[in-house]
Amino acid sequence: MQYRIEKDTMGEVQVPADKLWGAQTERSRNNFKIGRPASMPLEVVYGFAYLKKAAAYTNCDLGVLPQEKRDLIGQVCDEILQGKHDDQFPLVIWQTGSGTQSNMNVNEVIANRAHQLAGKTIGEGEKTLAPNDDVNKSQSSNDTFPTGMHIASYKKVVEVTLPGVKQLWHTLKAKSEEFAKVVKIGRTHLMDATPLTLGQEFSGYASQLEHGIKALENTLDHLAELALGGTAVGTGINTPEGYDVKVAEYIAKFTELPFVTAENKFEALAAHDAMVETHGAIKQLAVSLNKIANDIRMLASGPRSGIGEIIIPANEPGSSIMPGKVNPTQCEALTMVCARVIGNDMTMAVGGMQGHYELNVFKPVMAAALLESAQLIGDACVSFDQHCAQGIEANTAVIEKQLNNSLMLVTALNTKIGYYKAAEIANCAHANGTTLKEEAMRLGYLTSEEFDAWVRPEDMIGH
Amino acid sequence: MQYRIEKDTMGEVQVPADKLWGAQTERSRNNFKIGRPASMPLEVVYGFAYLKKAAAYTNCDLGVLPQEKRDLIGQVCDEILQGKHDDQFPLVIWQTGSGTQSNMNVNEVIANRAHQLAGKTIGEGEKTLAPNDDVNKSQSSNDTFPTGMHIASYKKVVEVTLPGVKQLWHTLKAKSEEFAKVVKIGRTHLMDATPLTLGQEFSGYASQLEHGIKALENTLDHLAELALGGTAVGTGINTPEGYDVKVAEYIAKFTELPFVTAENKFEALAAHDAMVETHGAIKQLAVSLNKIANDIRMLASGPRSGIGEIIIPANEPGSSIMPGKVNPTQCEALTMVCARVIGNDMTMAVGGMQGHYELNVFKPVMAAALLESAQLIGDACVSFDQHCAQGIEANTAVIEKQLNNSLMLVTALNTKIGYYKAAEIANCAHANGTTLKEEAMRLGYLTSEEFDAWVRPEDMIGH
Amino acid sequence: MQYRIEKDTMGEVQVPADKLWGAQTERSRNNFKIGRPASMPLEVVYGFAYLKKAAAYTNCDLGVLPQEKRDLIGQVCDEILQGKHDDQFPLVIWQTGSGTQSNMNVNEVIANRAHQLAGKTIGEGEKTLAPNDDVNKSQSSNDTFPTGMHIASYKKVVEVTLPGVKQLWHTLKAKSEEFAKVVKIGRTHLMDATPLTLGQEFSGYASQLEHGIKALENTLDHLAELALGGTAVGTGINTPEGYDVKVAEYIAKFTELPFVTAENKFEALAAHDAMVETHGAIKQLAVSLNKIANDIRMLASGPRSGIGEIIIPANEPGSSIMPGKVNPTQCEALTMVCARVIGNDMTMAVGGMQGHYELNVFKPVMAAALLESAQLIGDACVSFDQHCAQGIEANTAVIEKQLNNSLMLVTALNTKIGYYKAAEIANCAHANGTTLKEEAMRLGYLTSEEFDAWVRPEDMIGH
Amino acid sequence: MQYRIEKDTMGEVQVPADKLWGAQTERSRNNFKIGRPASMPLEVVYGFAYLKKAAAYTNCDLGVLPQEKRDLIGQVCDEILQGKHDDQFPLVIWQTGSGTQSNMNVNEVIANRAHQLAGKTIGEGEKTLAPNDDVNKSQSSNDTFPTGMHIASYKKVVEVTLPGVKQLWHTLKAKSEEFAKVVKIGRTHLMDATPLTLGQEFSGYASQLEHGIKALENTLDHLAELALGGTAVGTGINTPEGYDVKVAEYIAKFTELPFVTAENKFEALAAHDAMVETHGAIKQLAVSLNKIANDIRMLASGPRSGIGEIIIPANEPGSSIMPGKVNPTQCEALTMVCARVIGNDMTMAVGGMQGHYELNVFKPVMAAALLESAQLIGDACVSFDQHCAQGIEANTAVIEKQLNNSLMLVTALNTKIGYYKAAEIANCAHANGTTLKEEAMRLGYLTSEEFDAWVRPEDMIGH
Repeated sequence: MQYRIEKDTMGEVQVPADKLWGAQTERSRNNFKIGRPASMPLEVVYGFAYLKKAAAYTNCDLGVLPQEKRDLIGQVCDEILQGKHDDQFPLVIWQTGSGTQSNMNVNEVIANRAHQLAGKTIGEGEKTLAPNDDVNKSQSSNDTFPTGMHIASYKKVVEVTLPGVKQLWHTLKAKSEEFAKVVKIGRTHLMDATPLTLGQEFSGYASQLEHGIKALENTLDHLAELALGGTAVGTGINTPEGYDVKVAEYIAKFTELPFVTAENKFEALAAHDAMVETHGAIKQLAVSLNKIANDIRMLASGPRSGIGEIIIPANEPGSSIMPGKVNPTQCEALTMVCARVIGNDMTMAVGGMQGHYELNVFKPVMAAALLESAQLIGDACVSFDQHCAQGIEANTAVIEKQLNNSLMLVTALNTKIGYYKAAEIANCAHANGTTLKEEAMRLGYLTSEEFDAWVRPEDMIGH
Repeated sequence: MQYRIEKDTMGEVQVPADKLWGAQTERSRNNFKIGRPASMPLEVVYGFAYLKKAAAYTNCDLGVLPQEKRDLIGQVCDEILQGKHDDQFPLVIWQTGSGTQSNMNVNEVIANRAHQLAGKTIGEGEKTLAPNDDVNKSQSSNDTFPTGMHIASYKKVVEVTLPGVKQLWHTLKAKSEEFAKVVKIGRTHLMDATPLTLGQEFSGYASQLEHGIKALENTLDHLAELALGGTAVGTGINTPEGYDVKVAEYIAKFTELPFVTAENKFEALAAHDAMVETHGAIKQLAVSLNKIANDIRMLASGPRSGIGEIIIPANEPGSSIMPGKVNPTQCEALTMVCARVIGNDMTMAVGGMQGHYELNVFKPVMAAALLESAQLIGDACVSFDQHCAQGIEANTAVIEKQLNNSLMLVTALNTKIGYYKAAEIANCAHANGTTLKEEAMRLGYLTSEEFDAWVRPEDMIGH
Repeated sequence: MQYRIEKDTMGEVQVPADKLWGAQTERSRNNFKIGRPASMPLEVVYGFAYLKKAAAYTNCDLGVLPQEKRDLIGQVCDEILQGKHDDQFPLVIWQTGSGTQSNMNVNEVIANRAHQLAGKTIGEGEKTLAPNDDVNKSQSSNDTFPTGMHIASYKKVVEVTLPGVKQLWHTLKAKSEEFAKVVKIGRTHLMDATPLTLGQEFSGYASQLEHGIKALENTLDHLAELALGGTAVGTGINTPEGYDVKVAEYIAKFTELPFVTAENKFEALAAHDAMVETHGAIKQLAVSLNKIANDIRMLASGPRSGIGEIIIPANEPGSSIMPGKVNPTQCEALTMVCARVIGNDMTMAVGGMQGHYELNVFKPVMAAALLESAQLIGDACVSFDQHCAQGIEANTAVIEKQLNNSLMLVTALNTKIGYYKAAEIANCAHANGTTLKEEAMRLGYLTSEEFDAWVRPEDMIGH
Repeated sequence: MQYRIEKDTMGEVQVPADKLWGAQTERSRNNFKIGRPASMPLEVVYGFAYLKKAAAYTNCDLGVLPQEKRDLIGQVCDEILQGKHDDQFPLVIWQTGSGTQSNMNVNEVIANRAHQLAGKTIGEGEKTLAPNDDVNKSQSSNDTFPTGMHIASYKKVVEVTLPGVKQLWHTLKAKSEEFAKVVKIGRTHLMDATPLTLGQEFSGYASQLEHGIKALENTLDHLAELALGGTAVGTGINTPEGYDVKVAEYIAKFTELPFVTAENKFEALAAHDAMVETHGAIKQLAVSLNKIANDIRMLASGPRSGIGEIIIPANEPGSSIMPGKVNPTQCEALTMVCARVIGNDMTMAVGGMQGHYELNVFKPVMAAALLESAQLIGDACVSFDQHCAQGIEANTAVIEKQLNNSLMLVTALNTKIGYYKAAEIANCAHANGTTLKEEAMRLGYLTSEEFDAWVRPEDMIGH
């Protein structure tokens, strides 16, 4: 492989000749061989691209960066956002906990690419842009990384998570209406209970997601606060006056999202409670989705020896040994995602709780965990929606058979003949394998007409 | 011990003669000998007292309960709320997962106590009130327990958690003003960094709590939704029309808190995402408080070989072997609370995710975990505030010494002489054990006057 | 209330006159009003009683404590172990993280009680024993608390957890033999699958517990290591030579358990990986038990619209509104315990990971969490065993009906007619609501005799 | 793109012409667009390669597969293990929870590649090997996936995790000897305490890892148990007699690792406690490593306003804004890994606890989480060792200054003049900013000679 020499304050480093990164990126590649390469999420890199461009514009507006440097920086950032340099960010999550090296990776790539754009060859001549003095001007890793992390996280939540959950919510809502007349046996403690409609059952799922969506949206205000302008420790040292507000405005403009400068920069560097908060809401969605997916696979179980009240789409041959078997695979994918997200919530807590003084140094792992969870929940909701929820049908034959067979309809008699007599009827039917009506009449508590008039499942499903 | 005979649908049970509870409570005592006795939180019992009274009033208003029964129920509920029957609730958390037995415990105590209030002897004569047909009228365990759990949780959050956190927030805010002029060395990666004021450091802590308070308050709307009126499976079977809205109004009136009937009762029985949501915000506070407490003990460390920038109150002799040593015990109590709360958050998730069909049967453990966390965070904040935060003083002698000794003030020179020369000065001072000024002059980069004019910590703390 | 004056190095404190504790205990009571009173587990106090007695004997043997003091200390420790002073330990978990105040609580109670035993009145005359110089001789909170914690934890595991789990294991093993001939439908993905026996199903549960028991026993060696002799920082300062080994021998003798002195005292004070390790195995048991309890409640679900293959004992009326319904309440109690234990495992990790330098200061919360988990798992296994597992019966009528109705018996034909033809038969039967045999013959793939000879559930359950 | 037609029991599917996979893999690709592509760990695929080869050999030995098919299968498996087909496994973790589709992916690739090896063109002519009837013979997804998962996990633990941890342990052990004479101040509660040697401090770290290694090794017996031979539900349907034992022997032979057939196949399919157990031990290591890394960065903090007792290697420029600053980046990477692993442990629990009946369907997420943790801990230990631990030096100047300045040496006087007088000396020195010796003499408790003879740090570090 061909190499060129790059240098930083520690000295010279050999860098692959065809790569845009510089000395500090290369050092990091060598010093942190942990897990799979390039695990730092590209979304964070794109977050950096937005903020580097915004910083250049702000620095220019405030008179500390010439316009031609601003435009060069902006141009490279746009290229990065177009995905043209995705292979120039080789670093891993498991680096310095402030993400310093990913910040430098971006600075170096921008500087070297700008050198190319200026018609020069990387490694030759004075750099067109200095990675630290120009690209990183008025910035520190300590405020850029959390800013990039918030941009990436906010975008992921509003572009992937919320749309995905809302899509599934919409289907569940529609199903609750579609199944509004399908009266079925209820189950509590997994045991037969009084009836409800299948639509009511699905309305509970929709309501869970509705509350979860609201909970997630509630967290966005905190996540919209950006650290940029705090620089090294939150004081904003080495930034021109007015920089923090203006740079957030540029970021809001470039991303078309309502970012604002953090009211308190000391929190914004030293703690990542906003990330903990947002992930907490994603975890709540995972809790909801696990319940929903679990119910659906139990309701669809069978085909002959399960509950079998609903039919889910058959998307693939289910088993390599058991022909004809179709499995609730989308439920399984979704609940596995939930297990992952619930674990990630603990990673967020463990990272968030351990900040020291002016800096939390669990930034990359927190960014990666939140982005993973936000992506997985969004994707899994869409997959579950398309390949399972939309295709759910009521198995009315099974539903009716189980409903009519139920002992729990006896509850309708509580208000007619009292709790103890009702219980006696149910207990006898259970013991004798008979129906409620047979026992009610045998015991002399009701006439046939009374039974038919009083025990009507369709009257037991609410006002 | 003296016993009397109580009975339920399964038959007769011996109950201690001096106790107000009945057959089902006694069965539960015998069937669930798990952990310490009476672990079901009394707060849940009080929540039941509110709702039983509200149900009686609503039932009476809607014509299904005579006024004298309403008044008897109300009178016993008031006694329970006055703490007069705390020893009548012997059950454990680890019972049926719907809390059925605690519901029956309350029903039985109300019925038997009402019998006494009616001038009769328990166990003699027909019961003045029937536990099921009167006290539990228009109710089911499945909607009463989550209602009691929400009442208890909401009250705990607004009466203990939020006031406790706000008290500490108030002190931290005041300290941030008190220390507004105390310039000190910053620390990132635990390493010396550019200066800030001690007040700024504390403002970050206050900001964390401010955001956490807001996050917790955001969850209260969901928690204010009550399941009551859903009865067995959410349909509201066996309730009179209009019951759910009215009973929530009575609960709101009796508790003076903004409770409303849940829009969707199926969710309210089958999932406890509202509890997960509220606990998630409490967990976020734990994450914040762990960071804050940890910082404070590190800043107070010493007395001679630590950081030593602040002085915390000496509340007790610190060590049984090392005389004169005073430890950050309030920080330790608080961080232990945080460890507990973070663990509880996982208990909430594991419980919340496993609901089946129409009923989540992890209600008692979820109620207990949330109430524990809410109490501990509130109490620990008050304790930490009173015995630590309020008494924190700046150790200005140490602060000034460390500030003046710092190499990181060199950052002020970045904008004057560029990053590389600044780095050279710092590196030389570090290597030679000299001061920045000595090296700056030796290297010929600055005059003494320039150094004094440019390297001024008090100018490095923000706009 | 009557008070007496006690003093420590910080000055005088008022203590309730009828209590045996002294100044430092009282200070802690006042300084840590967090959560319910006296939450420090008594098991830890008893662990202290063993070690204080052992320390006194060792100190005496090594010539640094007179025999009469040794005997007084030993006598009070025996009283404590007999439960005579349970109300003398009012402190909470949420105190200093080294448990210093509980160590002093024990020292003070021993000293004051010894004063009484010496025929004197507490608070009058010179103390017969000095809490620090005599009772705490050759000790520090830093080595006593972890020692007491290990003693308490080890005892709990071998006296409650392991016997409880083994009792349940024994029943599951017996059930696997009892049900060895009951052929039933298997279920994978919750869907019908090839048959197995109910006994095989239960053998899987037994095997899980067998492995879990072994995993828990594997952790005991680490837990048997005692910190005592490390004193303040692990060096054993202020202990006579040979003290650590001998004091562990005395503890082993008094407890009749194989305790040894920790090979490395620095670890033993600064980290509690042994506690993390043991709790990890308890958590593994919780994971196993959750699976088992969940299966059992699903298998028992019904009575008419569930799986219904087994019958579990009816221990209590299940519902306050639905007569005749009996719920899997022991499964629910057990799975709630599992949720708690899994949460506690996170508390252990969060506590264990945060030790600083020579001391981990999350000792009380770690002790409390482990003791809670160990107790709950042991108790819940016994409760589940007695009130559920022992009484499980096969519902053979249901089992046979579901077995004969199954499509999955077609798997037996894979090796006879190939995967694709077998799949065709199953698919047709599924589509037409017919039996496998009907379709096999209709399609002309098998004769009636071949079908009967080849599709025999009792031949499909293994070699 | 060019496509060919592949088919399965559900019909025809278009597959990219240049890919070796077949219909079921392609269906899965289309049905599960969740998270990043090809996230199923290659290690699991390699595990499959071992077991497919072993199954072919066993099937041949037992007379159910011709030798030429055996050899073809073996040849492709060898190619897979050589990494020649890494791009043929495009599936994600978030698929069916039994990993069925990854099993089929392997079956299809083997069958198609065998077709090529037989000199034919994929998609033309009858398949040389049938994916189900030949490659998957005597197997089911339900026993192959857990087998592949155990093989992959065991290999990762013994090839990456244990060697990595042992390498770091070795260095810490060596450092404990190197620093055996460096007496320094101890710290408990972050406060100055009695002295110990830096070597003793490091011996604690080494002891933690030693116990952790033992704990991890303790779990390997369970992990060595293989499900293969259980087929669909654990009964071993469709396997020749003796298959399970023999196939495990072949796997042991091919991997050179001590795999055995699981004693109970029902557990092996339905529960993954072995995975939970192994990950529990990895989590314990994460807890230990977090403590160690945290200590090291605190001990190295400074350069001027921290603890500064050790010097760690400077591997990269630490900050983009603060010249001359070198950060504990390896500690940060390692503690981030710990946060991830602790979160993964919860994912393992959530997955492991939710098995249903005969099958746990959280297999892929459990495999991925364990493999990630095992890799990260191993890699991070090596990185931390090479780039940090090996280069740690004692900063003896700082250590000596802090030691001599300490008040805690007064502990040495406890046994000479009693606790109260010793405390008085320390308290006076603390209040007056003087030395212990000055106060001891001023108070008249000791002569200068006595002080020098009694207060000797080097005598305070153990027997």
